[in-house]
Amino acid sequence: VNLLLLEPAEIDARGQAVLGDVRAKHVRDVLRVGIGATLRAGVIGGGAGDVTVIGADRDGVILDCSALRTAPVPARSRVDLLLALPRPKALRRLYASLACLGVGRILLSNAARVERYYFDSHVLEDGCARRQFQKGLSQAGDTILPELLLFRSFRKLVEDELAPLAPGSLRLLADLGAPATGRESAREAALGASPEQRVLVAIGPEGGWVDFERACFREAGFVTVTLGTRILSVDLACALAVGAVHEALRESAVSGVTR
Amino acid sequence: VNLLLLEPAEIDARGQAVLGDVRAKHVRDVLRVGIGATLRAGVIGGGAGDVTVIGADRDGVILDCSALRTAPVPARSRVDLLLALPRPKALRRLYASLACLGVGRILLSNAARVERYYFDSHVLEDGCARRQFQKGLSQAGDTILPELLLFRSFRKLVEDELAPLAPGSLRLLADLGAPATGRESAREAALGASPEQRVLVAIGPEGGWVDFERACFREAGFVTVTLGTRILSVDLACALAVGAVHEALRESAVSGVTR
Repeated sequence: VNLLLLEPAEIDARGQAVLGDVRAKHVRDVLRVGIGATLRAGVIGGGAGDVTVIGADRDGVILDCSALRTAPVPARSRVDLLLALPRPKALRRLYASLACLGVGRILLSNAARVERYYFDSHVLEDGCARRQFQKGLSQAGDTILPELLLFRSFRKLVEDELAPLAPGSLRLLADLGAPATGRESAREAALGASPEQRVLVAIGPEGGWVDFERACFREAGFVTVTLGTRILSVDLACALAVGAVHEALRESAVSGVTR
Repeated sequence: VNLLLLEPAEIDARGQAVLGDVRAKHVRDVLRVGIGATLRAGVIGGGAGDVTVIGADRDGVILDCSALRTAPVPARSRVDLLLALPRPKALRRLYASLACLGVGRILLSNAARVERYYFDSHVLEDGCARRQFQKGLSQAGDTILPELLLFRSFRKLVEDELAPLAPGSLRLLADLGAPATGRESAREAALGASPEQRVLVAIGPEGGWVDFERACFREAGFVTVTLGTRILSVDLACALAVGAVHEALRESAVSGVTR
């Protein structure tokens, strides 16, 4: 836990928060700080900064969070993902990883090689995703929750719903292949994003997309990019894709130019 | 499983292998292929290619692996990692991820912020690492096992043992920080590797390296590079670092030039 996350409603009008749950236990038993100590905290969707412990006993911890009102709010990641719905066990872990990596929006979609029963998992309930997202944000030091959307029809998503959902985004389809094939890497392609443009990366199911799905992506303006020659598990493909796009966006921001 | 892995000793003089374990079950119940079918297989440390099912019953599967004798052997990754020993639960999962990402050698080291009890874990036994490595290789389609070495003294490793172990390697210390700080990204620094040079990336424990350790790294020729501004979990730091260095090595190979 590198950042203690608070819900906006937990902070009262005086800027104080009373914690009685696992977070209080963390402050007391792991961080082992007492009254007067400062620690990093953030309001979900809001600012992150130092808060002060002003009360601590067996029942909980009281924090003075008034500094968070004017603390800087982290920027939302400009990377969005379109994922073929992963198997529930993998998805559960993926939530925390994606929040840690920094992703703006996650579109979970059906696909030919997605098993039906994946859609019945409790992992798709809002509470589960939110708890895991918070773990990832606490690790990363971020407060901005990824947005999560579920689509039961791949075709409807890519043909109809994507246009209003992700207007003007740079669209990349991450796939296998060496640069020698003439295919750009995800990073190279993302260097082409204009300063405010969002980058949407599609990552397939185990076994990959089928030809019909690839054709739909091309039709919707996706450019096929490579993440290298290895067949990566979904979590690693996501990490490499998000890492490569963030790297490109940082490069563009530093140089102040886009291709 | 994208590649069925075989031990060299499992293939007899005629080039045949008889499988009776979980791999036979996988061929029969998941791949559902019968006699005459071909599937991707590889010999650990050797070639990967197509093998033919020449026998299948309740007791097992017989494969004709003669094609593997002349099949191309995948290249060993030029990326090595020096990791502060992660907590056992994290390390177990990390083995498979690192083999999937492609890592040549993994140096696990003690560090000031590594807990003593991590060294007592069964996760450090050879068998555990090897099983997890094989999972990662099967996923990635690779046959080259990472080499795993454990060091109980950080100082001895960095001051004395590294010179003979990793002579002439490009040495990077992955750390937090924006490019705006003037620090290169891991990818940018790895563009400086000469054609055959190995790249060794050091990744710290939860909580980071302490000042003494950073000084030792500098003394041993490590250049501090950034993986971005987020505080990543060890598994994600490894993925981003290995991904970034592989990307740089592919770029250098395509352009045929180094800086």
